[in-house]
Amino acid sequence: MASLSGLCSSFPSLKPNNRIGGELSPVRKDSLAVSTRSNSSFKHSVAREVSADLSKTNDVAGLKQAKQGGLEKDPKALWRRYVDWLYQHKELGLYLDVSRIGFSDEFVSEMEPRFQAAFKAMEELERGAIANPDEGRMVGHYWLRNAKLAPNPFLQVQIDKTLAAVCDFADAVISGKIKPPSPEGRFTQILSVGIGGSALGPQFVAEALAPDNPPLKIRFIDNTDPAGIDHQIAQLGPELASTLVIVISKSGGTPETRNGLLEVQKAFREAGLDFSKQGVAITQENSLLDNTARIEGWVARFPMFDWVGGRTSEMSAGVDIREMLVGASMMDEATRSTVLRKNPAALLALCWYWATDGIGSKDMVVLPYKDSLLLFSRYLQQLVMESLGKEFDLDGNRVNQGISVYGNKGSTDQHAYIQQLREGVHNFFVTFIEVLRDRPPGHDWELEPGVTCGDYLFGMLQGTRSALYANDRESITVTVQEVTPRSVGALIALYERAVGIYASLVNINAYHQPGVEAGKKAAGEVLALQKRVLAVLNEASHFSLPSSSLIQRLDDLQMQFSHFNAHCEDPAESLTLQEIADRCHAPDDIEMIYKIIEHMAANDRALIAEGDCGSPYSLKVFLGECNVDELYA
Amino acid sequence: MASLSGLCSSFPSLKPNNRIGGELSPVRKDSLAVSTRSNSSFKHSVAREVSADLSKTNDVAGLKQAKQGGLEKDPKALWRRYVDWLYQHKELGLYLDVSRIGFSDEFVSEMEPRFQAAFKAMEELERGAIANPDEGRMVGHYWLRNAKLAPNPFLQVQIDKTLAAVCDFADAVISGKIKPPSPEGRFTQILSVGIGGSALGPQFVAEALAPDNPPLKIRFIDNTDPAGIDHQIAQLGPELASTLVIVISKSGGTPETRNGLLEVQKAFREAGLDFSKQGVAITQENSLLDNTARIEGWVARFPMFDWVGGRTSEMSAGVDIREMLVGASMMDEATRSTVLRKNPAALLALCWYWATDGIGSKDMVVLPYKDSLLLFSRYLQQLVMESLGKEFDLDGNRVNQGISVYGNKGSTDQHAYIQQLREGVHNFFVTFIEVLRDRPPGHDWELEPGVTCGDYLFGMLQGTRSALYANDRESITVTVQEVTPRSVGALIALYERAVGIYASLVNINAYHQPGVEAGKKAAGEVLALQKRVLAVLNEASHFSLPSSSLIQRLDDLQMQFSHFNAHCEDPAESLTLQEIADRCHAPDDIEMIYKIIEHMAANDRALIAEGDCGSPYSLKVFLGECNVDELYA
Repeated sequence: MASLSGLCSSFPSLKPNNRIGGELSPVRKDSLAVSTRSNSSFKHSVAREVSADLSKTNDVAGLKQAKQGGLEKDPKALWRRYVDWLYQHKELGLYLDVSRIGFSDEFVSEMEPRFQAAFKAMEELERGAIANPDEGRMVGHYWLRNAKLAPNPFLQVQIDKTLAAVCDFADAVISGKIKPPSPEGRFTQILSVGIGGSALGPQFVAEALAPDNPPLKIRFIDNTDPAGIDHQIAQLGPELASTLVIVISKSGGTPETRNGLLEVQKAFREAGLDFSKQGVAITQENSLLDNTARIEGWVARFPMFDWVGGRTSEMSAGVDIREMLVGASMMDEATRSTVLRKNPAALLALCWYWATDGIGSKDMVVLPYKDSLLLFSRYLQQLVMESLGKEFDLDGNRVNQGISVYGNKGSTDQHAYIQQLREGVHNFFVTFIEVLRDRPPGHDWELEPGVTCGDYLFGMLQGTRSALYANDRESITVTVQEVTPRSVGALIALYERAVGIYASLVNINAYHQPGVEAGKKAAGEVLALQKRVLAVLNEASHFSLPSSSLIQRLDDLQMQFSHFNAHCEDPAESLTLQEIADRCHAPDDIEMIYKIIEHMAANDRALIAEGDCGSPYSLKVFLGECNVDELYA
Repeated sequence: MASLSGLCSSFPSLKPNNRIGGELSPVRKDSLAVSTRSNSSFKHSVAREVSADLSKTNDVAGLKQAKQGGLEKDPKALWRRYVDWLYQHKELGLYLDVSRIGFSDEFVSEMEPRFQAAFKAMEELERGAIANPDEGRMVGHYWLRNAKLAPNPFLQVQIDKTLAAVCDFADAVISGKIKPPSPEGRFTQILSVGIGGSALGPQFVAEALAPDNPPLKIRFIDNTDPAGIDHQIAQLGPELASTLVIVISKSGGTPETRNGLLEVQKAFREAGLDFSKQGVAITQENSLLDNTARIEGWVARFPMFDWVGGRTSEMSAGVDIREMLVGASMMDEATRSTVLRKNPAALLALCWYWATDGIGSKDMVVLPYKDSLLLFSRYLQQLVMESLGKEFDLDGNRVNQGISVYGNKGSTDQHAYIQQLREGVHNFFVTFIEVLRDRPPGHDWELEPGVTCGDYLFGMLQGTRSALYANDRESITVTVQEVTPRSVGALIALYERAVGIYASLVNINAYHQPGVEAGKKAAGEVLALQKRVLAVLNEASHFSLPSSSLIQRLDDLQMQFSHFNAHCEDPAESLTLQEIADRCHAPDDIEMIYKIIEHMAANDRALIAEGDCGSPYSLKVFLGECNVDELYA
């Protein structure tokens, strides 16, 4: 779920059979012939800081770099560097400036063969990805964004048909041809239920591209927090009757998404509404979700291709998904170039490698200077960290790769942490996202002679870039003319490809996420343990009688619990944590049992007979609700 | 602007005359007598990774730690560690678990004198901060949260009076006693204009504590992005007439805030509304903003005390600010303890020091498992990074301190980057924020036998914590019963104090932000240069005539510019970048001039005669609008 499912890549699901670039040995800094860097270990490089050592040598270039912290400071040389390296995509109106990353010509030469290998690996990936029997479904995100590239006419037709069906559905919803059973007769709201790529992509696109007054408003349930779900449903109020609920889960079995769906369905029932008349499923064919939707006869079902998020956005906000696909497709084309300087994705990967020593030694701070791109940094956080954060390389070496990504927006973040970026711990490089067009034509005005509101934003970006560079903090600047469906599609495609190329450079598989499973598995174990704890407490509540003094003490303790409203007809035996752990046959899990009890007690489902949660050893517990027999019958 | 002005501390403005702990030498890892860590240089520590070296020694404890990556893995020992170190604030229902940070008893002993010094420094700060002649205003955020602590009855009365005035004003707005001139007769919306602490604090509090249907809805203008401002105003639509605009700027001169105000005032004019009847200023007395508001007779003015953001929130959402202050005050009291184990702020500082080697060698990932706390991580990002990200220590040594902070919310972020946290680059520690109460009493139900939606959220948190720890990733867990005004106040106070103590430990001043000025200054220089460029282009447009071929070429180039609608009566001489730079007497600023031109061209304010922005050397430019004489007369 690493990427905007709205467009884009099969990153999470595309599991190539052939290891990409498996034949490549990882590029190591210390293998570079000429470098201002020391021999650094693979795991711990302090490359940038060793430049001082070079001042002891007679190497003039090294000396100069050492004096200047390795970065070019002469304005004229810097201007030449800027112009020499400036990448422009004319048609997209997109620029990439890498001049404020300090890579040397020697570094570029040294990396050249690695890039050629990465380009080759990417080409193989594009070809190999056309069929992915692993998942029993078709893969090929580049031709999904450009059906003409599809390998056969059947697929081409299928892609075009699906895209057309989505657009038709969206039009029909917006025009009122497809409508809810409620008297109003039109859908007014979208409630999108999904998590990960199934939420962040649509959220980002909706926020970046939605008009001020979209035909349908969109809300998101993107977590299994009950209070958060309640809040979203409460905000809909009576408009629940005219809400189109779109449930997105590639596997159809994501627990958070399933929970969100169950909660929403309950709200529909309680409001006397028929959910099936307002539900849409977007998922793989024949998944649990797909089957449920088919059997219950939901309004629509769409197969989980990769531009699904885009659908959601389109339906909600009139976003032109075809234009997004055009932008992505144009960028896909540009990033197929095998000339490093002419391939903006490769340039990004080069910068990342240089800045992080190829081992994630620095964080990537993403600062879009445009409110509507606030979520782009979170989107990149997901794309980059999930794709690159890997324990093993393709040869099975433990490498603990990754690049940490964070950021919100400029200039707002200047008031939050530019202080640290400029003067504090030097553990990052910055990516500025610049948008040249300030506001629609004809709306600009001057706040003071010759200066507009947008000039300030521009000045803050440029000023920050300069001030950081003056303190040897490196940065990349990506510039687009405007935030449009086309430029957003291009930005996404640019970063997807950069991640793919970088993964090749460091010899990892960017397309799986084994580490996510560990947390899910552990979560499942917690829930399983909770069931056992419940069973033990339930059993205890039926086989003994508490003393009356205990009842008295319970009354005394009531103040500790808000809404103490359970009352057992058959009062329970209270147990210590150790007793519960023993009866659960889980003596090693006593801490988790304690936490389960603490959580249940806070929600009136377990009652604390003695002691309190601050002193776990003293704790004695019994079950809050006694009528749970049916669950364990 | 480091902190929630809504409550809280004078962090940004509180500049103690006495350097706090100036007499302390910084605590250095390599000064610790017993440690699993190597002699690390101050700037680059690889402390955790050298544990393997210890396995060569005969030190049994060291050996054990080395084998286990330094972290205790035996379940029973871990449970003891959990219970031993568990901090509980009974009245607040707040717990702090530091057991998953691997500090040793020896480390704690070694740090003890440093903590005593930090406590003493904090006590002096509290006392010394009562008067801060630097800024010509009173300081003392602890008694601002508890007027009884104020040093004299006059101040006490003033604090109580101001708080009462704020509450009365909020009540009057909500009840409709104070109302807009519009026929509706009630304020329905708040538009809060501010940036940094003047935005993030209120945003966080509003999102955390606002009821589903607040009496007034709140929107924020927190940037100088014109499109972003337009979007907020457009969303208000006709409700602009019933919008209370609250302008917040401590200095009264923050450019982004000033620009936001000017834009909003323009929107009011264009809607035929009288801004002064709907504006509120929150700023220092006699600031430019304060004077403007007084002269124009705005609805209300409030002095910029530190709980100002809280006011905003209260007015918008019925948030009980008094309860927030109670929570903060209770936590202030708890964090005055000079017993490390009983002082939760000191425990946090201890963990940060251990985890980051006292030099920010690891990032702090903040994961609140509760949707409404999404912005808490951004709030902490601001508080921690702006306070701790400092170039020099109090003795003038260059230390480049700081801790990078990022995070959004769990379990959503598990789908974004838990992959990297668990398996990827080990450059972080996690802070989990746990909320025990899932949803209000009586609303819970079981999705499946014995399991609620909230149990999943709980399970995801616990599972992630376990899975990370199993891979030697350390974490802190802060637990609160519920998200209430009181607990939010307590959380803020907890982290403020932790930052203060940590700053003492590493011997830096947490209360200024000199680095922010550099960016602002650079931004000002960019705008000044832009004015010179405009003047040069303007002059050129009046003293020469272009050839007719140029006019023709311009027509050809029109396609490059959207909305090419300027027409010069007196056609201009086009200039190369070099010529402009020379005429500006700024030959070294040619790159910035290029960027200024690029930005102006994208906004139809400069016209490109030849070449394009992708080839800067080829570029020839003239001015888009000729009638700017009055500006430079």
